[in-house]
Amino acid sequence: MIENSYYSQEVHGPYELHDIGNLELEEGGTIRGCKLAVATFGSLNAAKDNAILIPTWYSGTSKIMEQVYIGKGRALDPDKYFIIAINQIGSGLSTSPHNTPAPGGMGNFPRVRIGDDVRAQHKLVTETFGLDSLALVVGGSMGAQQTYEWAVRYPDMVKRAAPIAGTAKNTVHDFLFTETLVDAITADPGFAGGFYKSSEDVREGLLRHAKMWAVMGWSTEFFQQQRYKALGFSSLDDFIINFMNAYFAVMDPNDLLCMAWKWQRGDVSRHTGGDLRAALGRIRALTFVMPMSSDMFFPVADCQAEWRLIPNAEFRPIETIDGHLALFGADPNALAQIDRHLTELLAREA
Amino acid sequence: MIENSYYSQEVHGPYELHDIGNLELEEGGTIRGCKLAVATFGSLNAAKDNAILIPTWYSGTSKIMEQVYIGKGRALDPDKYFIIAINQIGSGLSTSPHNTPAPGGMGNFPRVRIGDDVRAQHKLVTETFGLDSLALVVGGSMGAQQTYEWAVRYPDMVKRAAPIAGTAKNTVHDFLFTETLVDAITADPGFAGGFYKSSEDVREGLLRHAKMWAVMGWSTEFFQQQRYKALGFSSLDDFIINFMNAYFAVMDPNDLLCMAWKWQRGDVSRHTGGDLRAALGRIRALTFVMPMSSDMFFPVADCQAEWRLIPNAEFRPIETIDGHLALFGADPNALAQIDRHLTELLAREA
Repeated sequence: MIENSYYSQEVHGPYELHDIGNLELEEGGTIRGCKLAVATFGSLNAAKDNAILIPTWYSGTSKIMEQVYIGKGRALDPDKYFIIAINQIGSGLSTSPHNTPAPGGMGNFPRVRIGDDVRAQHKLVTETFGLDSLALVVGGSMGAQQTYEWAVRYPDMVKRAAPIAGTAKNTVHDFLFTETLVDAITADPGFAGGFYKSSEDVREGLLRHAKMWAVMGWSTEFFQQQRYKALGFSSLDDFIINFMNAYFAVMDPNDLLCMAWKWQRGDVSRHTGGDLRAALGRIRALTFVMPMSSDMFFPVADCQAEWRLIPNAEFRPIETIDGHLALFGADPNALAQIDRHLTELLAREA
Repeated sequence: MIENSYYSQEVHGPYELHDIGNLELEEGGTIRGCKLAVATFGSLNAAKDNAILIPTWYSGTSKIMEQVYIGKGRALDPDKYFIIAINQIGSGLSTSPHNTPAPGGMGNFPRVRIGDDVRAQHKLVTETFGLDSLALVVGGSMGAQQTYEWAVRYPDMVKRAAPIAGTAKNTVHDFLFTETLVDAITADPGFAGGFYKSSEDVREGLLRHAKMWAVMGWSTEFFQQQRYKALGFSSLDDFIINFMNAYFAVMDPNDLLCMAWKWQRGDVSRHTGGDLRAALGRIRALTFVMPMSSDMFFPVADCQAEWRLIPNAEFRPIETIDGHLALFGADPNALAQIDRHLTELLAREA
């Protein structure tokens, strides 16, 4: 357990910590007194049918979902919906390697799967918020993985689903891609098997990890059109140092690795003995599958192949040159497309 | 200077070493007694107009060009052409960091540019082989970079040019991509600033570098369709360990870094004050621009943008799911396309 002021209400709040008790994990471990950091927006209506759940992505928290996706007049309008953004396990806000006391924290933190997150979230929204249906589950990247897991695991509860820039079953290629991110961190001698004293001991590894995100997260066109200038950076170096490095260097290495391990193994076909068609066939939610057109992690073709296996789904790719990190919202045109699709999805009878 | 039996006639021969004298480099250094490793196939005709030059790519040597691209009845037919495959500086066969005596070798090896290679090759083919024209310059990846450099620098000498899976000016995105390959090696404490005793001291770095090549070099579809089985590997692990790792782990880290530095800075617009249109406008060769459809390093769009700036050029993309490493020749259909285009190019009046 180490102090890291990045993971605080000052930076990511306001949010509430909900203790959901012990969480037994699919891989065999147990998280004792598992805490989920939850930010809510708007109010639950009397019929309890206006709840929207947003799980978070790798390195992201409820704060970026609030800043980029939620707003009056937007699809995710707190005036109309009760929006629950739940930070994933390992996010640094919910129970994570860095904030778990010894002996279970740091390099000893157990392996967590996407399914563990979704069971934990299910417990929270049913027991704490008394919900028995969700008007929409929507998330990007690992949030999309959780969205798929929700729709497959609790088909009667999820009325609509919008997985953005993510897959229901991770590909071998994406597994390997992510493995290079993992290697960047673990190869740093300062990582010390996950028992560093401060994330600064792993600085070189975190910077390599950030550089790899710079090249895989965006796209060739993003750099060719110098889109980083649109994000307010004067040059490529300025962008790498003051955006990518600044963003990732303050994070906890074990927290990132916890999320990466989950990401690599996201797979709803675990429910059906490896039969992806059967797993996706369980989905009853009206589903809009929304890949980013220039995504290197979750390419359009991979998302499209899954879309074909979902009973009641539409394929709604987002045209953008911002790659996977179009999720960050730098491309207003991509955001407008997402809003348009989500608005349409929420208006549909489901 | 260290011994490395991988860079030997046994593995890559037969080839001849030609000493072209001192080579003054664009970045200010000098290679004393620069040696180029050259493999030739076929015979020069009396008119001296049947010579084909093949420069090599990153980590590749003349041997793979011979094995995959040259052959009786193929486009590059030694019965018809005098084919000269020249290993690039830093390839491990020609003058390279690992085979240069102290004090100029290893971590002290000077910065070499694509233009240095091409000037060295020009000296060799004009002085040693007495050539004043080349029927074709053809190369893949860094070989394409050298092909472009040849066509821009010596427009009267190059009759035809076939840059495959490479660009005339490297993109910012590809620069960053390659930077992560460089980081994988240099971050290994065993690298010791380039003064390791054996490449085995840098084993972890070389394996990370190999894994990154595995994910960036091929494509999502390559892995999804388990194409590695077509290469004779039983599983993904078998492929990573016994192909990717086995291939790269025996190479010299400084040699790879020498090539990577060149690759990152390949740019024919250095001849025209940064004006790429003006540089490519100098090309008189009949040029077939041949990207690989699934290439992550040199995407089709990047190659296409350059093609538009070349006066007498055709755009001939190769359809394949093998990504950049379709260059290795595992996809017979891609090879057939390349052969067909090269045959057509060589048949054209130029």
